[in-house]
Amino acid sequence: MTMEENMNKVFFIFMIIGVPLSIIGSIFNWNYIFMFFIYCVTLISLANYIRRSTESLSVVVGPTAGGLLNATFGNAAEIIISFFALSKGLNTIVISSITGAVLVNLLFASGISMIVGGIRFKKQKFSVFKTRHNTSLLMFAIIVTFVLPFIFAKRLDDKDMQVLSTSFAIVMLTIYLLALLFKLVTHKGIFTGNAEENGEEPEWGKKKAIVVLGLATIVLAYISEKLVGTIEPVGAALGWSHVFIGIIVVAIVGSAAEYVSAIAMAYNNRMDVMVEISIGSTVQTAMFVAPILVLFSYLYDFLPLVFNTAEMIAMILAALMTVTVVNDGDSNWFEGVLLVGTYIAIGFSFYLL
Amino acid sequence: MTMEENMNKVFFIFMIIGVPLSIIGSIFNWNYIFMFFIYCVTLISLANYIRRSTESLSVVVGPTAGGLLNATFGNAAEIIISFFALSKGLNTIVISSITGAVLVNLLFASGISMIVGGIRFKKQKFSVFKTRHNTSLLMFAIIVTFVLPFIFAKRLDDKDMQVLSTSFAIVMLTIYLLALLFKLVTHKGIFTGNAEENGEEPEWGKKKAIVVLGLATIVLAYISEKLVGTIEPVGAALGWSHVFIGIIVVAIVGSAAEYVSAIAMAYNNRMDVMVEISIGSTVQTAMFVAPILVLFSYLYDFLPLVFNTAEMIAMILAALMTVTVVNDGDSNWFEGVLLVGTYIAIGFSFYLL
Amino acid sequence: MTMEENMNKVFFIFMIIGVPLSIIGSIFNWNYIFMFFIYCVTLISLANYIRRSTESLSVVVGPTAGGLLNATFGNAAEIIISFFALSKGLNTIVISSITGAVLVNLLFASGISMIVGGIRFKKQKFSVFKTRHNTSLLMFAIIVTFVLPFIFAKRLDDKDMQVLSTSFAIVMLTIYLLALLFKLVTHKGIFTGNAEENGEEPEWGKKKAIVVLGLATIVLAYISEKLVGTIEPVGAALGWSHVFIGIIVVAIVGSAAEYVSAIAMAYNNRMDVMVEISIGSTVQTAMFVAPILVLFSYLYDFLPLVFNTAEMIAMILAALMTVTVVNDGDSNWFEGVLLVGTYIAIGFSFYLL
Repeated sequence: MTMEENMNKVFFIFMIIGVPLSIIGSIFNWNYIFMFFIYCVTLISLANYIRRSTESLSVVVGPTAGGLLNATFGNAAEIIISFFALSKGLNTIVISSITGAVLVNLLFASGISMIVGGIRFKKQKFSVFKTRHNTSLLMFAIIVTFVLPFIFAKRLDDKDMQVLSTSFAIVMLTIYLLALLFKLVTHKGIFTGNAEENGEEPEWGKKKAIVVLGLATIVLAYISEKLVGTIEPVGAALGWSHVFIGIIVVAIVGSAAEYVSAIAMAYNNRMDVMVEISIGSTVQTAMFVAPILVLFSYLYDFLPLVFNTAEMIAMILAALMTVTVVNDGDSNWFEGVLLVGTYIAIGFSFYLL
Repeated sequence: MTMEENMNKVFFIFMIIGVPLSIIGSIFNWNYIFMFFIYCVTLISLANYIRRSTESLSVVVGPTAGGLLNATFGNAAEIIISFFALSKGLNTIVISSITGAVLVNLLFASGISMIVGGIRFKKQKFSVFKTRHNTSLLMFAIIVTFVLPFIFAKRLDDKDMQVLSTSFAIVMLTIYLLALLFKLVTHKGIFTGNAEENGEEPEWGKKKAIVVLGLATIVLAYISEKLVGTIEPVGAALGWSHVFIGIIVVAIVGSAAEYVSAIAMAYNNRMDVMVEISIGSTVQTAMFVAPILVLFSYLYDFLPLVFNTAEMIAMILAALMTVTVVNDGDSNWFEGVLLVGTYIAIGFSFYLL
Repeated sequence: MTMEENMNKVFFIFMIIGVPLSIIGSIFNWNYIFMFFIYCVTLISLANYIRRSTESLSVVVGPTAGGLLNATFGNAAEIIISFFALSKGLNTIVISSITGAVLVNLLFASGISMIVGGIRFKKQKFSVFKTRHNTSLLMFAIIVTFVLPFIFAKRLDDKDMQVLSTSFAIVMLTIYLLALLFKLVTHKGIFTGNAEENGEEPEWGKKKAIVVLGLATIVLAYISEKLVGTIEPVGAALGWSHVFIGIIVVAIVGSAAEYVSAIAMAYNNRMDVMVEISIGSTVQTAMFVAPILVLFSYLYDFLPLVFNTAEMIAMILAALMTVTVVNDGDSNWFEGVLLVGTYIAIGFSFYLL
């Protein structure tokens, strides 16, 4: 796995330089545009450490507990950044960053992965069964978490909307737990057919993994707070709207762990894992992260899960596009180009907005 | 088939108590909320008798005539209730009950069936060929019967809208006949591959089946009229909107025969028949029931086939969800949970409206 | 190939009568409604000659250069007619004719082909792999060329809209070139598995093909200009809106070459080629013709690629319908009826508008 080792080295360098710079810069109030980019790069490197420690731990504790660990910590960066944004009343950014996470995972992560993999391999295959389980979940998550509240929002008053959002959040979390039950308990054999592969050594021992996980999470939280603090002035200085910052910048930073490992998997021709990561983490965003943020938001301003029309349609198109590309059970560089092309077109449109 | 026998016993009890109660109560004007629920339960039990007598008859008369019989009487309860609602000018309820029938069949009937079947069997398979014939028809029916009039309604005046609705109704009925021709004549072998299974004995002889069919239909018509008469006061007393009554209550009563037999089929692992029932009867609602009601409505107030936006989108989402879940050719309890979850989320949203 | 020979005879007669009539009539200003129909029929016959000479040439020059030739001249009639419409400021007609080309190719061409083929063959198979490559491209083309500009058009001012349309046009042309690279170079083996069939003799030799191509294109351009000149008065006289003329009349004339050969292919049970033609030429319309016209329009009034809501939804529905029908890898007469039925319903709706 030379490619992954190389990437890990890059992230090590980013981390070893970025963390001290971030801490010092935040104390001495260095130029906020400069710090904004430092924070972003450092967060991306830390998210990579959280991912690697979670993966090591999940090998140690076995597939069931490991599945739960991944399901909880997989989107840690996303949740932590959004949490601080909520606490500062930046609800628009939270909503946009959910949209952005969906777009990044479905279009950018899968697309780049298919291109990188497709350059090495003429045709890459993946299991249609697992993929279809994921696409069903994806359609469900997008329909119930995103589309339904959107339709009814226009006709309901704020109080009913809060009831609707809260109930949907609880329904989604319940079904998310049922999905884990299905995957990790009742239909375990089908999804962990890689049991042999799981025989692979964890990268780190149990102790080291726990320490890394703990430290990386704490530092990530610290820097996330600082990052959120610079969003307002940076947006004003560069002429970026809240929606654009949420959809592009926060989403790319928050989802870095996922697409980095998706690309590594595609490079090694493990396309099942790649699809699992990119669709699976979109499902997690919709069925776990978004509902958790709605419930969190009771601490501050209530966050109704209502997207604007452009965000809504962008997510639906991204899902349809992915389902169409992925349902045939194989991929090639050109399918990757289509996904990335869609991502660029959508991103550019939001930039113009 | 113990499960079906047990259900038949339950329906027998409901019928034997419900029919006299309904008749006596309607004559002596008992409390209308009480009578509303009596009527509903009794109608559900009668629809079951209509279904069983139709099935017995269709075994007797052979697959072609039997297919026609099923195609005509399969939605008898739905048509009769809607007919009385039309005659009382309750057009909103008729439109909503069509939406409701689509949602109940696609999401609730398939969903509960997959859960019930999925608890007994880890994975249930069904024929992808038959399923895709049905999903093509479903997409067509929803696009032409529901979406097109919806789009053009905003731009056409009432008179043109009547021309459009009537022409579409005639087109749909024509294509529905062609679909029967395809299924029962030109491509008969493919769909009645269950020819051996058809070797099974009819539940009732020809005479008994005709008598039961006749009696059940007459009583069902009588009670349907009474039920429709209580809708207005019950809605007012319980605070239910016309749309909610149509989408949830009337639809659940009118489609009972379908989902009861869909569940029984899933329990016996006959998933092809289950899919045929739940998607097939949705197609029937869109291509046969809805156009028939449009033509009927010339007797009273003309019924343009125009749904409101929320109904429209709910139906499209239900169809997309079903197609995604069903197209892989197998099902499990979790896919059932997704469908039922979507149904509950949609139902709850309409309740809040 | 008797069927194709017969059709070629018909087109020969149309051409030999139509061309002189068109030229004489245009000089002596004959009745414009009469001339309108003469022009239409003549253009259809000329488009057939362009198609046949292109096909002969592409056999001569080999698959790669031949693929490029087809990709460029395949929509020659469409491009030339639209070009003259642009030059006369008839932008509405250009936009509608793009919609119409999508609808004609996806619904009418495939539908009639499946009916014609389905009457001879009970079930016609085609390669799921090639089909899915095409449906992925189709979804992409429709999403990026049509849906995205539509969503953002309402929120952007004219200048930003021009930036968006122009950038999208360039992105689409780039990806169209990449699609050719994929199909003709990197994944050549997969798509030209018909290499043996290509062993078939070209209809005409190189010289004859070039002469026919050149002559037919010149005459087609002359008549196209005349046709466009009669659109305004004919529309006024017959009470046809610009949208209707664009969607139905211009589209049927401009796409004649495609659906005539699609039908011939289905008749000979070469369904892969049929699907390639009908979906492929829709993709060409969206990814090549439409962007080229946007760039051309800088010469006259800028043409932003923004469709009205009805056109937009009609195209999305047509794509969904086609994908559903085609994804199972076989077809029969009834699937053809569904597609043609959808086409008629949509056409009739636009007529009423």
